[in-house]
Parts: sequence; C-alpha cells; structure tokens
Amino acid sequence: MSLLKETLSKIEGLDEKKMQEAQDRLDSLTKPPGSLGKLEEIAVKLAGISGDVYYKVNQKHHILMAGDHGVVEEGVSAFPAEVTVQMVYNFLHKGAAINVLADQIGAKVTIVDIGIAGEIEADGLINRKIRKGSSNIAKGPAMSKEEAILSLEIGIEMANNAIKSGANLLGTGEMGIGNTTPSSAIIAAVTDEPLSKLVGYGTGIDDERLAHKIEVIKKAIDTNKADTNDGIDVLTKLGGFEIGGMAGVMLGAAANKKPVIIDGLISGAAAIVATLIEPETSNYFIPSHQSVEPGHSAVYKYLGLEAMLNLNMRLGEGTGAILAMHLVEAASDIISGMATFAEANVSGAE
Amino acid sequence: MSLLKETLSKIEGLDEKKMQEAQDRLDSLTKPPGSLGKLEEIAVKLAGISGDVYYKVNQKHHILMAGDHGVVEEGVSAFPAEVTVQMVYNFLHKGAAINVLADQIGAKVTIVDIGIAGEIEADGLINRKIRKGSSNIAKGPAMSKEEAILSLEIGIEMANNAIKSGANLLGTGEMGIGNTTPSSAIIAAVTDEPLSKLVGYGTGIDDERLAHKIEVIKKAIDTNKADTNDGIDVLTKLGGFEIGGMAGVMLGAAANKKPVIIDGLISGAAAIVATLIEPETSNYFIPSHQSVEPGHSAVYKYLGLEAMLNLNMRLGEGTGAILAMHLVEAASDIISGMATFAEANVSGAE
Repeated sequence: MSLLKETLSKIEGLDEKKMQEAQDRLDSLTKPPGSLGKLEEIAVKLAGISGDVYYKVNQKHHILMAGDHGVVEEGVSAFPAEVTVQMVYNFLHKGAAINVLADQIGAKVTIVDIGIAGEIEADGLINRKIRKGSSNIAKGPAMSKEEAILSLEIGIEMANNAIKSGANLLGTGEMGIGNTTPSSAIIAAVTDEPLSKLVGYGTGIDDERLAHKIEVIKKAIDTNKADTNDGIDVLTKLGGFEIGGMAGVMLGAAANKKPVIIDGLISGAAAIVATLIEPETSNYFIPSHQSVEPGHSAVYKYLGLEAMLNLNMRLGEGTGAILAMHLVEAASDIISGMATFAEANVSGAE
Repeated sequence: MSLLKETLSKIEGLDEKKMQEAQDRLDSLTKPPGSLGKLEEIAVKLAGISGDVYYKVNQKHHILMAGDHGVVEEGVSAFPAEVTVQMVYNFLHKGAAINVLADQIGAKVTIVDIGIAGEIEADGLINRKIRKGSSNIAKGPAMSKEEAILSLEIGIEMANNAIKSGANLLGTGEMGIGNTTPSSAIIAAVTDEPLSKLVGYGTGIDDERLAHKIEVIKKAIDTNKADTNDGIDVLTKLGGFEIGGMAGVMLGAAANKKPVIIDGLISGAAAIVATLIEPETSNYFIPSHQSVEPGHSAVYKYLGLEAMLNLNMRLGEGTGAILAMHLVEAASDIISGMATFAEANVSGAE
C-alpha cells in the first residue's frame, strides 16, 4: 500500500466520549462555565484528537515547506523569485521571523526544499526537491498527478518523522514567492467565492498588479478546469509543491492523531486540499490568525473554523501558526492545572 | 506632594523619535514591510514608551485587585458575593485560571485585597483593604472621594513595587463578584453608548436578570450624576475599589514608562478612569482580548485600541491580559532578533 493510502486509511473521526469527559472536566473547574471560550473548545478538541482528556502539549514542531511557482513569470508578486532561496538561507541562519517566534515558544523547526527553483546546499535543509518550481498554472497544470501525490507523501513523511521524534503539536508554514496566486486559485475554485472578494495584495503589490493577478488566477481556473471534488486534482492543476507538502503534513498529523495548526492563506489552501482528500482531516485542525489576505476568511468559513489571533499579519512562514501554539498550550495547561469548584471550596452559580 | 499628584506629574507622551527609529528598524528586517501587523505596532509603541528601540521584555508581572460591591444586593450577579473570598483563596493556592496562565508565561502574580467584603488572612495576600466592599451605586456613590484617591494610590504603589523589583511588562486583572455592573455603568456614562448595546451577561445571568441589571445600572447613572470629564468623580460615584486599584496600576506604569496590558470589561473601565484622570496614560496601554461582554468594544473604541485575541472569553482575573503577554514578548523579540535585508542578503520588493 502506498504511503498516502496507508495514511488516509488511518484518519478517523474524533473520540466523542473523551470530548464529553473533557467538557465535564472543564465545567467542574473554578470559572463560570464556558468563560474561557475558545481555549475550552481547544481543550475539548485535544481530548477528541488524542483520546486523552489531559493531553499535555510537550514538543512543538513547525514544518516549513519551501517551493517556487512557474506562475511568477506572469508578474504576480512584489518580490523577485530568487527571494525564495535567499529566505531559506535566512531560515537556516535563524534570521527570519519564524526563527525568532519558534525560539520564543521553544518549537523545533524543519525546513524542507520541496521544489525551490534555485540550488541550495546547506546544513539543516531537508532536500526533497520534486523539481525546480511548479509549472505556470496560467498555461496548464502546476504539476503531474504523480508529483502531486509525491508532494503529499513528502509532507506525510515530515509529519511522521516529527511525531516519531516526540512532537505532539505541529505547525504548518511555507515560503514560496508567488504562492498567494495558486492558493487564491484553489480557494476560489473550491469555495466558489468571487475572485474580487478573495484575492489580495500578497507581500505588497499595487492595485494595477492586483487587477492583473486576478486575471491570471481567472485564466488558471478556466484553463485547468480542476475537479473541485478531487483534492489531488485541485492540487495537480492549481497547486504548488509546498501546498501539497503542507497538505501532506496535515494528513500525517491526522493519521497520527495529533493536532496541527493552520496558518494563513497558503496553509489554508493546503487545508482545503487535505480536507477534499479526506474530510475527517479537518477534525485535527486548529486555527490561528486572521490574515490580511481576504481569501483567508473564505478558508475559515469553508473549514468551519474561526481565527483566534487578529494581528493584521500577512508574512507567511507559518508565523500565525507558531504564535497560536501558546494558546494551544494554554488550553492544555488549563484542563490539567486548574482546581475544581469542589477542590477549592468555591460556590457555583446560584 | 501626594503620591497621586507626584505620579500624574511624571506621565508624559511617547518618544516619537524612538518610535520612528523602531519603525525604520522594522522596515529593514527580512519581511514585507508591515507584514507583522500589530506585532510591529507594539514594537514601535514599546520604543516610544521606554525610549529603547530594542526594549526587551524581561520580567512580566500581573497585578490582580480583589474587591466587593454593595450593588450585588440588587441581585445583578449569577454568583453569590462570598465567591470573591473563595476565589482569592483559590488564587493563593494556585488553582485558578490566572495561576495556570501566569505559570505558562512565567509571570509573577500579586494578589491585593483592596476591598473584599469578607475576612481573609493568608500568606501571599497583600492586605490593602479600604473597607469591606463599596457602597450600592444604585442608591448613591460607591465610595468617598478620599477612598477613590486611596484606591488609585494603592494601585500606584503596587505598580511601583513591581517595577522596582524588576518588572517591565505589567498585566491588570481583578476579582469581584458583581463588578461588570459598576464597569458597565462607567463605560455607559463616559462613552454615551446606549445601555442596551453595552450591558452583558457577566459570569452567566439569564435574560430576565440582564433586564434587571440594565435597570440597576440606569438607576446608578441617574442617581449619581457623575461628572464624566472627571475620572476621580466617575470612580467615586460609579466605581469600585478594584477598579480604582487597576486604574492606579495603569497610572503607575505610565509614570514609570512601562507598558501595561488592558484586559476585559473591568480593566477597560479602569483604563477609562485612568485616561480621564491623565489622558497621556493611554499611550502606555496595550490591548489584549475581545471579551464576550458587549461593553468591551465601546472601551476599545474609546481608547483607540483594537483587540489582538478573539477567544470569546469572559472570565476576568486578567486572563486575557496574561495571554497577550506572549504577543508583547514576540514583538520585543522580533525587533531585536530578526536579520535585516542587508545582513541576510535578501532582495527587497521590485
């Protein structure tokens, strides 16, 4: 059986009995019932994911997939494509935002070259390059079906490795100049929201280039006619290697019954791909921030999630996901660490 | 000179030159300009507050003021008044949400009895009881002007002590059964928003009791006729001892040029009082979460702030403020820890 098939066969629904136990425990703690809001929802979800009411977040692990996009030749990004290579060196030298924020929360970071256009040989980089950048989606599919499956399996492998080494909370992040374009294409194709409401300024293009970007995305959708019920076809036609890699991380997390944090627009597009491939995957998702990119709202709506952080961020790398790790850890600490009304001799509501 | 007057005389505007330096530094770092959103705004504010572009959050200190309210005799709360005492014991035994979240972020916690109705003698509790609960605001002023000033000075003293012991990021929290009632009264009187849009379910009352709570607040406002340009008069007529204490912490933080995090509704009412007393105080505020309490939005609007966390929380104790400490620390880490475009050899936007 292929790694993908084996992984999909392991993804199940949540443990509802443990979720009820977690809810009962939360209601017994010294606070008005429900007053910790989404932290309580996360604690319940962690119980459902893991089967452990007192799930303790121990090792946090962020997986960052880097890849390039043929569609940048259409002029959709504010930054030149070589920035993908430059930023990967920056990650490896610990100079980027994701490094600083990972250090703050004590998370490990894995950087994967899953399809960078340039050459990189550097210590600390995991080389799983499928090829040097996806094809231009404005002209045809981003990749072959075999490449799409390979990208998913690379993500699964990375999740499996992180979890084998002890990780029990995963974050997803990416680097790839131009990748808001395929992500917006995926989100538009699957959610049917109008492009004018979905497509944003990415890393900082102007209004003229935004209009052009919308045209390019429209052309990509019309040219490729992806089957929007088939996640692998959507990834093949409109995706990118790092999008497939992130979707694979999500599938791998779900198969291992571990929570995985969704970041911004690109991570959101990957979450849609993963959910199309196996709908139960979305049970394992934890939302993070609300990106400035307008398409991100459509992602959360589609997945039935709501952002916890409103920071007006649009950086990528998984910076929103890594900030949300603190909140997941807080939820895990709350259910284990607080006293009950009975233990503390506190009166309940009248 | 009184402690209050001395403190007010030290509160100044922000250092705009250092804020510009911080902005320039942020724009030189390896990310699209502005892409870290509110984290960048906080980094700029920290520079303006402290005069140090590379302000490093070292010691975090949360000050929790506990007091009771005569207005609970009107039947405005879901919980009986003795819960204030019970919960203070819970804080001292480290069983409450605030203890768990403070441990997670490594913050010190000071618990102050500034006006609890019951008797508490326990190690670790700072006893600055003004009297056993404020008076019923539905019938007259909450306290005398002298008591209002004393409550502010107790808060200032607590902030001064924390900062002397090394704290450079303060959080504000409270415990006081019934305290959404005086807080809503303050917010309504000062912001002129209609009570129907402001008043919420507190720790969990039903619709019938909500209607009654609105009537009680209306009566308190009409009976007391506070001068809404005079923060001390507002505190005297409509406040509570812990609200004055929290406002004092904010004034103390500002006088010491230290950032202070605003929590939910009650902390917000205190922030309004502090701002009325000295408008420059609000420069030193950092917002945290968006409470479920509808009046909280009016607070942020009045203060010109926007929530960073959307967790549907309504617990109190400063649980939102303490969760936001992670974000302030992140902002402080970002400006110090990231590489510049030049250092990392990364190309800028085209």
